Amino acid sequence: MKRIYLDYNATAPVDKRVQEVLAVELRDGYGNASSLHEAGRLAAKKIREARERLASLVKIKNPDELIFTSGGSESNNTVFWSIAANKEKSPGRDILISAIEHPCVLESAERLKSFGFKIHKIPVDGQGLIDMEEYSKLLKLKPRLVSIMAANNEIGTVQDIKKLSSMAHEAGAYFHSDCVQAVGKIPVDAGDWGLDYMSISAHKIYGPKGVGALYVKKGVPFASLIAGGHQENGRRAGTYNSPGITAFGVAASIAEEELESYRAHVLPLRNKLRDGLVNSVPNIRINGSQDFFIPNTLSVSFPGAEGEAILLHLDLLGIEASTGSACASGSLEPSHVLVATGLGPELAHGSIRFSLGKYTTEEEIDYVLKNLPPVIEKLRKFSTVGLV
Amino acid sequence: MKRIYLDYNATAPVDKRVQEVLAVELRDGYGNASSLHEAGRLAAKKIREARERLASLVKIKNPDELIFTSGGSESNNTVFWSIAANKEKSPGRDILISAIEHPCVLESAERLKSFGFKIHKIPVDGQGLIDMEEYSKLLKLKPRLVSIMAANNEIGTVQDIKKLSSMAHEAGAYFHSDCVQAVGKIPVDAGDWGLDYMSISAHKIYGPKGVGALYVKKGVPFASLIAGGHQENGRRAGTYNSPGITAFGVAASIAEEELESYRAHVLPLRNKLRDGLVNSVPNIRINGSQDFFIPNTLSVSFPGAEGEAILLHLDLLGIEASTGSACASGSLEPSHVLVATGLGPELAHGSIRFSLGKYTTEEEIDYVLKNLPPVIEKLRKFSTVGLV
Repeated sequence: MKRIYLDYNATAPVDKRVQEVLAVELRDGYGNASSLHEAGRLAAKKIREARERLASLVKIKNPDELIFTSGGSESNNTVFWSIAANKEKSPGRDILISAIEHPCVLESAERLKSFGFKIHKIPVDGQGLIDMEEYSKLLKLKPRLVSIMAANNEIGTVQDIKKLSSMAHEAGAYFHSDCVQAVGKIPVDAGDWGLDYMSISAHKIYGPKGVGALYVKKGVPFASLIAGGHQENGRRAGTYNSPGITAFGVAASIAEEELESYRAHVLPLRNKLRDGLVNSVPNIRINGSQDFFIPNTLSVSFPGAEGEAILLHLDLLGIEASTGSACASGSLEPSHVLVATGLGPELAHGSIRFSLGKYTTEEEIDYVLKNLPPVIEKLRKFSTVGLV
Repeated sequence: MKRIYLDYNATAPVDKRVQEVLAVELRDGYGNASSLHEAGRLAAKKIREARERLASLVKIKNPDELIFTSGGSESNNTVFWSIAANKEKSPGRDILISAIEHPCVLESAERLKSFGFKIHKIPVDGQGLIDMEEYSKLLKLKPRLVSIMAANNEIGTVQDIKKLSSMAHEAGAYFHSDCVQAVGKIPVDAGDWGLDYMSISAHKIYGPKGVGALYVKKGVPFASLIAGGHQENGRRAGTYNSPGITAFGVAASIAEEELESYRAHVLPLRNKLRDGLVNSVPNIRINGSQDFFIPNTLSVSFPGAEGEAILLHLDLLGIEASTGSACASGSLEPSHVLVATGLGPELAHGSIRFSLGKYTTEEEIDYVLKNLPPVIEKLRKFSTVGLV
């Protein structure tokens, strides 16, 4: 059976051109980029190029402000560790994060409690947008750090990061944005957005898994999460994953080049899916802002049907989607993102995230539109969810 | 010019069979191993297999005691963070590490000072072997953790880990061994050696860069270095690098299968290089134990010649070697490993590490033996090192 992959926010397939680059690097790029011989110098050169490519994608003037990491989770963790390790330099002990952050931001923040920090969650409205009134109130605490993701992984809502960071700076806080889901999907401009820290992941932009980056603006607090070795100017130890980093760079250039065509491809398909479901399945709810969103993501609640049961049926039909974050899958808790937007447990439990990608076709969307409605009808008929 | 790569301890080329597996996974293994659909389940299955393969190589009965990481540095850092984060559970505030650890163990340990720990370095003798008398004395401190690498990256000396860990346990300490340079080169048996923690890297055993593992014995203190997500049973967040992990598993199986043939191949070549240099270059010193060593490593001091100058000349001849740890390259400090074995700065600065691998040929060694002696002669003639 042909598989229909609609889980691009969990991870995207590696672009064929990136696969080819990676294959060449795995064959020829054997050197350790820290070594003082030709194989080492070649690997170091490839890494410099990749850093420039990524800097170009996210509009960073100085590529050396980018640190390559093992992925978005390491990048996010490094930001919070940097604040903890430099706490003596500032009296601020309050940290603000949005209520809809990725689990690894939530947990990185949580862990700072043991270092004497207090974590405050900024509420969002029914569309997943930051509640500006509450945000302004919380900023009066003069927090040390504000961390707000640019685009939400589950509902796709995009925040006004430029405004949010400017407000944070006025309050004397550093501003971090987890841009893992935004990069490659919408224009991201670290300078214009006023970011101090930004997290990026390669495998969400058709690059390899196990590679990511952290933007650290010159002069902001920093501490290595992985210490030892002089790599990344002493900011991240460990042998450079030069083939992975090289491939990440190529993926970044492709993403930059295709940003417009990407949007032009996925947005109509995403909207077709949304409108088709609205028209064919009674009583559903589209989650997240329909004004500010990444063009590939559609979160739908099907009251009276249980999310994992829907997924199971879709999987049998060859359709691969998600109930929410892959990083939270297996959990019995309802999605904290949907709950934060005001959904009750029943709706939150009956939600599916469709995340499309550049390889998604109209035929695939048609197949989903044909096959999903009967699944929901069947599940609602047999469901006890509505009865309790 | 054909390049002669003798820097396998810095990193090894990826085995062709591993390259092929990786290429297939990058093409087909696109799922997120945490996803609840077929693509996700397939990725999860590959990771389970890789865990079993690696467990078999290092003789671990329960593969779930292995955590996949981004590499040896992350693994080493995680051990020290685990001790720091669990410090309330024990009064022990002393930590012993050998004086010849890898920079990332040295720095991970150093950083624990800010958590109230005291770091003690266990001296080594002239061969790089742990000074047992001093070790016994230090154990009287009742340390919380002892960390001693199994095989040294620069001089190749192999410690009696079984005895060292047993002494640590008698003193009530946990025992960690950085086995990055031992795995794949000599038999490693986590159970028999009595390890509580063990660090492993994929790219040193002909696997991909950016992948490693940490063995954590059930019941010993643990804390995630990268928090968030439920991956690795909640012990290491971040989307599984399933292609990299799968390739690591295959590299582990190949290493297990070839352990004997590897030794039979590299040891005679390494010894030929050693004997050839001893016979053709006057006044040199072979570093490290010649009784207990990994079979691929040869560290040689050439008094009167400067290490980086030798490297430069070798590089021009197509020979790729190292002065010591790639992670410390660029540093002007003499190797802390050589200094710990009693070498003065002049000898330490004039040292070259040759690390051979399974693709090293006798012709390559002959080429080195023909071309290196004139380089040393020339450098010694013009050197000012001997005059200061």
